[in-house]
Amino acid sequence: MSVADRVMELARRRGFFWISAELYGGVSGFLDFGPLGKLLKRKIEEKWRQWFIVKNQEFVVEIETPVITPYKVFEASGHVAHFTDYMVECLKCGRKFRADHLIEEQAGLTGLEGLSEAELSSIIRERGLKCPECAGPLGEVKRFNLLFQTTIGPYSESIGFARPEAAQGMFTTFSRVYNAMRNRLPLGIAQIGKVMRNEISPRQGPIRLREFTIMELELFYDPKDPKCPVLDRSEVLRIVPEDRVSKKLMEPIEVTVEEALKTGVVLSEWTAYFMVLAQKFIQDLGIPFEKQMFIAKLPQERAHYASQVYDQVVELEKWGWVEVSGHAFRTDYDLRGHMASSGEDLRVYKQLSSEVEVEDYEVRPVLEALKEDFGGEAGLVANALKMMPGARVLEELESKGFFEMGKFRVYRRHVELVKVKRKVKGRRFIPFVAEPSFGAERLVYAAMEHAFKEKEGRVILSLPPDIAPIEVAVFPLVNRNGLPEKAREVYKALKDRGLLVEYDDSGSIGRRYARADEVGVPLAVTVDHQTLEDDTVTIRSRDTWRQVRCSIQQLPDVIEAYVRRKVAIAPLKELIE
Amino acid sequence: MSVADRVMELARRRGFFWISAELYGGVSGFLDFGPLGKLLKRKIEEKWRQWFIVKNQEFVVEIETPVITPYKVFEASGHVAHFTDYMVECLKCGRKFRADHLIEEQAGLTGLEGLSEAELSSIIRERGLKCPECAGPLGEVKRFNLLFQTTIGPYSESIGFARPEAAQGMFTTFSRVYNAMRNRLPLGIAQIGKVMRNEISPRQGPIRLREFTIMELELFYDPKDPKCPVLDRSEVLRIVPEDRVSKKLMEPIEVTVEEALKTGVVLSEWTAYFMVLAQKFIQDLGIPFEKQMFIAKLPQERAHYASQVYDQVVELEKWGWVEVSGHAFRTDYDLRGHMASSGEDLRVYKQLSSEVEVEDYEVRPVLEALKEDFGGEAGLVANALKMMPGARVLEELESKGFFEMGKFRVYRRHVELVKVKRKVKGRRFIPFVAEPSFGAERLVYAAMEHAFKEKEGRVILSLPPDIAPIEVAVFPLVNRNGLPEKAREVYKALKDRGLLVEYDDSGSIGRRYARADEVGVPLAVTVDHQTLEDDTVTIRSRDTWRQVRCSIQQLPDVIEAYVRRKVAIAPLKELIE
Repeated sequence: MSVADRVMELARRRGFFWISAELYGGVSGFLDFGPLGKLLKRKIEEKWRQWFIVKNQEFVVEIETPVITPYKVFEASGHVAHFTDYMVECLKCGRKFRADHLIEEQAGLTGLEGLSEAELSSIIRERGLKCPECAGPLGEVKRFNLLFQTTIGPYSESIGFARPEAAQGMFTTFSRVYNAMRNRLPLGIAQIGKVMRNEISPRQGPIRLREFTIMELELFYDPKDPKCPVLDRSEVLRIVPEDRVSKKLMEPIEVTVEEALKTGVVLSEWTAYFMVLAQKFIQDLGIPFEKQMFIAKLPQERAHYASQVYDQVVELEKWGWVEVSGHAFRTDYDLRGHMASSGEDLRVYKQLSSEVEVEDYEVRPVLEALKEDFGGEAGLVANALKMMPGARVLEELESKGFFEMGKFRVYRRHVELVKVKRKVKGRRFIPFVAEPSFGAERLVYAAMEHAFKEKEGRVILSLPPDIAPIEVAVFPLVNRNGLPEKAREVYKALKDRGLLVEYDDSGSIGRRYARADEVGVPLAVTVDHQTLEDDTVTIRSRDTWRQVRCSIQQLPDVIEAYVRRKVAIAPLKELIE
Repeated sequence: MSVADRVMELARRRGFFWISAELYGGVSGFLDFGPLGKLLKRKIEEKWRQWFIVKNQEFVVEIETPVITPYKVFEASGHVAHFTDYMVECLKCGRKFRADHLIEEQAGLTGLEGLSEAELSSIIRERGLKCPECAGPLGEVKRFNLLFQTTIGPYSESIGFARPEAAQGMFTTFSRVYNAMRNRLPLGIAQIGKVMRNEISPRQGPIRLREFTIMELELFYDPKDPKCPVLDRSEVLRIVPEDRVSKKLMEPIEVTVEEALKTGVVLSEWTAYFMVLAQKFIQDLGIPFEKQMFIAKLPQERAHYASQVYDQVVELEKWGWVEVSGHAFRTDYDLRGHMASSGEDLRVYKQLSSEVEVEDYEVRPVLEALKEDFGGEAGLVANALKMMPGARVLEELESKGFFEMGKFRVYRRHVELVKVKRKVKGRRFIPFVAEPSFGAERLVYAAMEHAFKEKEGRVILSLPPDIAPIEVAVFPLVNRNGLPEKAREVYKALKDRGLLVEYDDSGSIGRRYARADEVGVPLAVTVDHQTLEDDTVTIRSRDTWRQVRCSIQQLPDVIEAYVRRKVAIAPLKELIE
């Protein structure tokens, strides 16, 4: 049995997680988290909160926006148009597959990201690919939008979507949060919450889910002031940059942040900062530095909103290198889209210390051309164009041939760009955005797989002590002679200290240690006959299996230091080291 | 302006909460929580977790199941059939209203819960009720199902719902969690998570939401062993029992738990236990005992799954007595339904200390009658019936005329009940369930309204210190003479202690105090010129506006004790008391 299968068996049997709606045959892409899994997941989320929000509380805040979101938001964000995958259906058994995955698996082809439906269809025809389940013939490739759709209100036409990312909640609330935080940049807005993606055929257990918990942060900054003041440029990133990816050289290189920025391997200082945090956070979950790296996404692989993306991947036994976070440089893409669709001005204003003369391009909408292409929405487009930064409009028209504001794509004929000189006392601009984004469920699995060890034929889940679901176990050596009463007292003292404690008095002491090891309880306290004489207990380490005696009085301090702060104080020190 | 309006204005302006998707005109029934609101909401959720889960960690566990849930689960639970409201549409303007609310508001009628569509329609006709918005004529009353519906997978017929309660996640996972917790009863399974209800016309701001966070616990116990070992029978409940509600005597009485149980005012000991906890939890949010009570729901008002329900209500200025929690005695209703629909045996087995002879009714399905009424599902129904407790089947057939197992309603002709005597070594039974269920968003609002005070024309949000979003503010008296540097040190020391600290150096000190008071910061620390001489600062209390000096060294301990444990230690003691 593979390690993955053994981790999943453990997860199911001991109540970490399992496929949802089991009673009804299960539903792919959804997980239930049981008591231990929920504790582990919460600790991982809390650790992310500490690394990304609390540590940066001067400029990062947390918000919460709804899962169900009106149509217009995801139209403006580009998701209605672009958040799609290619699907192909078996004409015999009716099963549906992701067309690119099927071609990759059956024909060994890669780099399919830029291809159209027709191109994918013809690869399937030419290679004679068949249904992997029943060997039946496959139909034409179609695009499928991954948004879960519903209706808001009774019998209405008001379409809503379950959000596929939290980010749009940060963009639509940006102005209000920016005001509430008294108009300061940089401003990070973070969210930890559920998102849904209607994946075509999720078959990778905890890795590809249709509903999962995203931990996402949008860092808004002035594009003219892109410095990250909290960045340590001597930190080392383990990275596969775009030029190496395009040559299929997938071995990572180790570069300092300094070099990565200088060479353009990482475009934004803020992205570099969050990549450094991401490495530390993942290490903190027990996944070593050498089992993680960042891989650049090629232009055709990137999400529609991003100018640069790094995927952070970790090595897993069965699924290879798996993405655990994405680091997207979203620029002003999203705010632009919402400005155009809502008609609101989402720019921020920055007072200058003195009046200065600036040269810029003024964007003058060509109304007739806009009316031809946008009809009744021409006014909305014209209004938004006037708020766009001229130099950036020009640059994108020249490099890409069009300028995008959400669902509106503007071409050369729609605008005049006029160079102007002006004296100004302040600047009005659309902030740029750097985004780190993590999935909690994958991390639960990845942390468990990396913690999965065997020793003398027994399983030990060697999770870092500060994310272990149960922090300490208490056992009476035998169930008589007053030991259970004493053990209950010890249990209560530890519980009153706020620790997550398990009391176990069933089966032999060896069995109880084994049961605790298997779910990663870092320390087990046993009350024995000596306890009744001198008020000491044994503490046993999950990882070393060695034991040390400790007075009951000291016990809460000793346990707390180890499982909350990962510090071994005497007498635990000798046991662990 | 009403207090409610002022609280909402404050909530919007300072970034607690506001209507979602504001950029696009807002969407009723959905809220965005900003930085302060999210902190407050998280603290309220964490407090609930402490009161209901952590305090009871010997027998209560927390799990997490998905929001999107397959059709079969909510079919089995009865929600597809019963989770409906009555809707009426204006034939002129097309607006939709909850028919019962409209009749209540316009005709002053109450007690409409048991009426049918036709009866409600005829009230509207007879009374000549019109559209409250445009005075147009109203159409026929229809039933509308409040489940948000979607489709799981591409172009499939696989219907999914956004869950309207977390409870079904506890029922569908009950067996697995029960096994993981090593087959012990009582077992509480709790969940804090998002739920969605597609309300017809939510118009009460933060009170009636289409998406909200539920905090819900299902306590499973042996119906033959209904004792709650942790219940204190001398606790007092403030309660309006069913017989008083039916006479419209809405003044609460105060009874001890002992009396409430003896007189049947509360049916289940576990419900009584959670009602006591609920009172303490709500008091802990700053809402006094005399502003809360429990009101029994009459049979026709109760949810389809419940045998007894108490709503906990708190008094709000604009909306009157508003439900903040529900305490439902769900018996074995839900597990029965899932047993019937899934075919699985969800009973638990309890070994007896010795073999005993028991008398019970054996349930023998009458297959011909089942086939007539249930067609292809007759086998499923028969299989489930054999697992049902005979005495209970008989009792319900006699009292209600039918016996319900989720979507299946069984009548006298479908079963034979045969009295049998048997020697047994154990019992197999379906656990009973007591459920407390809270909504987090309403509590955020209720806590804010109850904390909203005015003093000398200024607003003070006097939240209990341990739920205040920002725990302490740090101000340099002036922005020169080295005070900002010193204040930054103090800020950092408090932040490193894990406190949520705000640094504010803009505007006069009076303005800064006012800004902090308005969002409920319990303590403000000011660094002044004396600080540079003797390393002391002033601590100012939000509630008394008095100040006391404290050494910087002591400061973290003093602040932490007050805002985490609500304990004022010296020198703060003199300030607060």
